[in-house]
Amino acid sequence: MQNNKKKAVVLLSGGIDSSTTAVYAIDEGFDIYAVTFFYGQKHSVEIDFVKKLCDCLKIDKRLIINIPAEIFSSSSLSSASGIEVPKNSDLESAGDIPSTYVPGRNILFLSYALSFAESIDARDIFIGANAVDYSGYPDCRPEFIDAFQAMANIGTKAGVSGDPFRINAPLLKLKKSEIIKLGVKLGLDYSLTHSCYDPDGNGSSCGKCDSCKIRMKGFKEAGVPDPTKYVKSR
Amino acid sequence: MQNNKKKAVVLLSGGIDSSTTAVYAIDEGFDIYAVTFFYGQKHSVEIDFVKKLCDCLKIDKRLIINIPAEIFSSSSLSSASGIEVPKNSDLESAGDIPSTYVPGRNILFLSYALSFAESIDARDIFIGANAVDYSGYPDCRPEFIDAFQAMANIGTKAGVSGDPFRINAPLLKLKKSEIIKLGVKLGLDYSLTHSCYDPDGNGSSCGKCDSCKIRMKGFKEAGVPDPTKYVKSR
Repeated sequence: MQNNKKKAVVLLSGGIDSSTTAVYAIDEGFDIYAVTFFYGQKHSVEIDFVKKLCDCLKIDKRLIINIPAEIFSSSSLSSASGIEVPKNSDLESAGDIPSTYVPGRNILFLSYALSFAESIDARDIFIGANAVDYSGYPDCRPEFIDAFQAMANIGTKAGVSGDPFRINAPLLKLKKSEIIKLGVKLGLDYSLTHSCYDPDGNGSSCGKCDSCKIRMKGFKEAGVPDPTKYVKSR
Repeated sequence: MQNNKKKAVVLLSGGIDSSTTAVYAIDEGFDIYAVTFFYGQKHSVEIDFVKKLCDCLKIDKRLIINIPAEIFSSSSLSSASGIEVPKNSDLESAGDIPSTYVPGRNILFLSYALSFAESIDARDIFIGANAVDYSGYPDCRPEFIDAFQAMANIGTKAGVSGDPFRINAPLLKLKKSEIIKLGVKLGLDYSLTHSCYDPDGNGSSCGKCDSCKIRMKGFKEAGVPDPTKYVKSR
């Protein structure tokens, strides 16, 4: 049977945002090609969550791409950095970009998605970037998404041929609680997602890093039970 | 001894343009970090030329990055494509982008260079893109370089912190013969470079693909002997 659905490349990291974006894209009627990255992140357990989620959502077109750890070595998320993931920082004190910033991460991830999309003749790329409940990363803001899309349509054959790419970031302006409510509405099981930057050896979440804190706050505000397994000491 | 030179990440492919760009960047006083890609290209022999060139130029900081062949599978340069590299096409008949176009290649390559540059605290990236004697690829034009640089400075910590990246493309507006003359002036030995898209099993150049034709024309117009080993039947 011919599949007449429009193809979309979806960046999947195993977290709340990208997982919600995937169910959103499925709900919009797209045929999903998932792309995930191993880059020496301390929380590489997230890749196991991507696999479980893809199994559950019946996404069988999946690519897992290895990026050498040297590329992101200045981030505290990288096992190559020798820097500890910050804990118990004050989420409300906006301003500085934290050490968990990964240099040009979404630029590199979107570039992979773009080349893959053009190769398979897809024009839609989905990314779970979010500029509300986030850590202040520059590559999660609307102006970045706009700049990347503009650049993509200047630097590709499809773009200059009048058949442009769309960088879809449907969660960009939602609060974390709104994202969770949307996912619940679309039937997403959040026990298949992982957020912690610094899980223990059993994959339990620390409950203290920015990503855990944003996650906990999101579930609380959404009035949805948090299915996450946190370490007991928190 | 402390190295006080400014760092630069240089994309090196083994061809005339990127090799000339490397000697140019060295001549400008930069400390070079070379980045090269294996992406299932039929002419992966070019990577051997990069190694020889780096040995000769004493560039010891080198990264060779593997990109899965699926990412660029629609290009005739990819061994995953099943498409033959076109031969004996008419270089003068501009217009269509040829099948040797690799989807979003310079976007992905520059994105790697950008993340690596931010990780090692470099702000200069060099690429041998050239918009004069080229094959009409959209990601070799000045407007693409400008768009990438603008996007990079919106999507990175350094960029938004007022310490922007520079995408240097010093050959952008030179003819191939002018590039060769520049390289000869800077002491580059072009026998350490490779251009052919479809070399034979011994690494000899076909003399018939666009890249060979542009190379041969360049040496002829520059009045410089072409050191390339071409297959005898051409």
